[in-house]
Amino acid sequence: MEKVGIHTVSIHPFEVDFKNRITLPLIVNHLLNTAGRHANERGFGIQQLNEHNHTWVLSRLAIELNGRPECGETLRIHTWIEGLMRSFTQRNFRFETGEGEVIGYARSIWAMIDTETRHPVSLIGQGIEEYIHQMDCPIEKPGKITLPEQTTQSSFDVTYSDLDINKHLNSAKYVEHITDTLPIEVMERNSPFRFEIEYIEECHYGERIQTFWTQSTSDEYLVALSKGDGKMACKCKITFK
Amino acid sequence: MEKVGIHTVSIHPFEVDFKNRITLPLIVNHLLNTAGRHANERGFGIQQLNEHNHTWVLSRLAIELNGRPECGETLRIHTWIEGLMRSFTQRNFRFETGEGEVIGYARSIWAMIDTETRHPVSLIGQGIEEYIHQMDCPIEKPGKITLPEQTTQSSFDVTYSDLDINKHLNSAKYVEHITDTLPIEVMERNSPFRFEIEYIEECHYGERIQTFWTQSTSDEYLVALSKGDGKMACKCKITFK
Repeated sequence: MEKVGIHTVSIHPFEVDFKNRITLPLIVNHLLNTAGRHANERGFGIQQLNEHNHTWVLSRLAIELNGRPECGETLRIHTWIEGLMRSFTQRNFRFETGEGEVIGYARSIWAMIDTETRHPVSLIGQGIEEYIHQMDCPIEKPGKITLPEQTTQSSFDVTYSDLDINKHLNSAKYVEHITDTLPIEVMERNSPFRFEIEYIEECHYGERIQTFWTQSTSDEYLVALSKGDGKMACKCKITFK
Repeated sequence: MEKVGIHTVSIHPFEVDFKNRITLPLIVNHLLNTAGRHANERGFGIQQLNEHNHTWVLSRLAIELNGRPECGETLRIHTWIEGLMRSFTQRNFRFETGEGEVIGYARSIWAMIDTETRHPVSLIGQGIEEYIHQMDCPIEKPGKITLPEQTTQSSFDVTYSDLDINKHLNSAKYVEHITDTLPIEVMERNSPFRFEIEYIEECHYGERIQTFWTQSTSDEYLVALSKGDGKMACKCKITFK
């Protein structure tokens, strides 16, 4: 089995925003589906892990793209595992157009947990090592994200369509709620950007989640989601270039 | 060009609910993308219409399925135009598994409008006639939907990720908000079902939409979305068999 997985997707009318460009949550969606297929085909996908009461948890994600492709365009997403530590693995991505032009990269950090104890599980000796691969990924690793000043806020309740197979707010839906929190003028921008998110806490069905955002510079926005008990659920930074 | 269009989709991890089955809004999404591709390939897609300030508006939709397929399964959606009147066209669908087993059908009714006046446009002489095709679609046409008694209600605001290319609540997102309105136990059910929706009014960015639902029999649920001015935005009926 090849170390690099490739997933090709066409961008459909119901995946684009009112400016005809694919939305950020759907880019994340395609990226996560690419990761899922790669892991699954190599024996360590979520369904295979579930048989041993284990699952993958996405911890951090950074995406840099020249812009968001339009409806009708093709996105070829490459993914490979860059490294493996005891509790974390780094998975990278390269985005290409249908013609093979590179339009961006992404870096992600994942942990494996026991679905009953919710504790981390060692990643060593699970057959992941043999797929470690070195390939260029010229973007910064996900770093620390400053908490936004909590000036502008709103809220949402976690509903049925937000849920993943583990009955938690799914990783792409965090991003959908983040894009819905920011002013629409921010999401309309289509210059090259970096999107970075730190997933901190799981959100459950029925939970009310508070959203906060601030504009930290003319080209940088910070967003956070927090839970009823005040714990941060995630922090996010979007920077336009 | 063939009269029948076929669109094959794989069901990805981020398209399923916590029971591992594709959600209803994503079934609608795939159905609408199938319709969009069919129309586009034959010269009367949304982007082609936009050049003449016209667009398609989905008026009614009825879907009957034996159940919702699981993650990893394949859905082959066939679509064809059953008939054409001055102001409306009927487009049908047949759902098959990857192995060609028929698992359901859908019927939809569409109008074409002028994007500036918002008035209907005649469908005659636009090159659609030549694609009219007769094929079995053994489900009832979309009928009149009773308004639910307005007992249980909640609300949502139309946000960025709700919007279609015309900056209105997109047709699949109506369905997502409907599934989020009903108790989660209803959406968990996976017996054969009929889903029927009547789209009445467009919903705009920032609008607050009220949702109402009622259980009309042990196997039937009615849902309605209404706008701030009290006008109904859509009515919907879900029946389990």
